[in-house]
Amino acid sequence: MKLLEERILKDGNVLSDSVLKVDSFLTHQVDYELMQEIGQVLADTYQDAGITKVVTIEASGIAPALYTASALDVPMIFAKKHKNITMTEGILTAEVYSFTKQVTSTISIASKFLSQVDKVLIVDDILANGQAAKGLIEIIQQAGAQVAGLGIVIEKSFQPGRQELEDQGIKVTSLARLASFANGQIEFAEADV
Amino acid sequence: MKLLEERILKDGNVLSDSVLKVDSFLTHQVDYELMQEIGQVLADTYQDAGITKVVTIEASGIAPALYTASALDVPMIFAKKHKNITMTEGILTAEVYSFTKQVTSTISIASKFLSQVDKVLIVDDILANGQAAKGLIEIIQQAGAQVAGLGIVIEKSFQPGRQELEDQGIKVTSLARLASFANGQIEFAEADV
Repeated sequence: MKLLEERILKDGNVLSDSVLKVDSFLTHQVDYELMQEIGQVLADTYQDAGITKVVTIEASGIAPALYTASALDVPMIFAKKHKNITMTEGILTAEVYSFTKQVTSTISIASKFLSQVDKVLIVDDILANGQAAKGLIEIIQQAGAQVAGLGIVIEKSFQPGRQELEDQGIKVTSLARLASFANGQIEFAEADV
Repeated sequence: MKLLEERILKDGNVLSDSVLKVDSFLTHQVDYELMQEIGQVLADTYQDAGITKVVTIEASGIAPALYTASALDVPMIFAKKHKNITMTEGILTAEVYSFTKQVTSTISIASKFLSQVDKVLIVDDILANGQAAKGLIEIIQQAGAQVAGLGIVIEKSFQPGRQELEDQGIKVTSLARLASFANGQIEFAEADV
C-alpha cells in the first residue's frame, strides 16, 4: 500500500535494527484518514471471503480493525490483555509472550461472541514474531470458528511471524513489509496489496 | 442520545447495583455504526470549539474517540496504561486509580503530541468516579494545552465523577446518563445531547 509506505518513510522513526516507531500515526497518535484507507484496502481484499467478524487485540489494533469492520459491515471484537471484574461469563483464553515487553500474558475473548458459524478476519497493527496472532488464532479455533486470514498494517519481514503463520495455513495480508531497517535505512519488501 | 439509550436497554447487562456490562457493543465487541453515530454527535456538540486533538485512554475509549476525531477532522491520541520500550522520549504522566481493577497505574502521553496551541476534547467510554478523566486532564494541562470538554458515552450519574469534574470547571457531555440500575431496572437521567 503505497500511501502507507510513504507515511512510514516520512514519519517512521528507526530506533534500532529491530525497532521502528510509528507512534505519530498508528500506535499512539492515530491518523483516522490513513486508518480508514487501510480498513478499506483490507476489506476489499477479503470482501468475497464471507467474513462475519473482525478480531483484533487491544490497543493499537483497534483503529485499523474498526475501519475494516466498518467497510465489511460486521462487528469488531478486541481481545483483552487483562482481566476485568465484569468478565464473569465463559471466556476463551490463550497465552501470549511479548518479546517487546518480555512478559507472558493471558489474552481473552468472551466465548459468546464467536461460534462455529463465524468466519473471522484478524487485523493487527504490527506482525513481528506473530505471538499475538497465534494467540488470537488459538482462541478463534477454540470457538470452532474459521480464520479467513490475517490483515497486518506493518510486517517486519525479517522476523519469523509471517512464515510460521503461513506454515499453519494462515493467509497473511500485509500492507507494508519491512525487509530491513539496518543503519536507519528503511527497505521494503513487496507488500501483499 | 436516544439510539444509545435504546441500545443500553436492549443489550446492557446489569451485574450488580453498580456494574452494567455493555460488552456486546462498546467495551469488547464494538458496533462500528453506533460508534460512528456517537462520534458524530460529540463532534456536532464541539464543532465550534476549535478542537485540534481528541484524546482518550486505551482501550475501550478508542472506538468512540476515533469517530469523533474523524468527524472533527483532527488526530486522535490514546494515552497508554503501560510502559513500552519504544517510549523513550519525553512523556507526560499521571497516576490513575481504578476502582474496577483496584490498582493504581501510571498513564502517559508522549509530550511531542500536545502543546500550548492545542484545544483538546477528551472522549471516554464510561464516566464513574472520573479518575481516568482527571489523569488525562492533568496530562493535557502539563502540556500547556486547553481542555475544551469531556465527551462520555455512558455516565454513571450516581457516582461522583461528573460533579467533581464540573467543580474543576470542565464541561461534561454525556450521551447516556444512568441514574440508577437498582434491582436490575435501568433508569436514565436526562442526557446532555
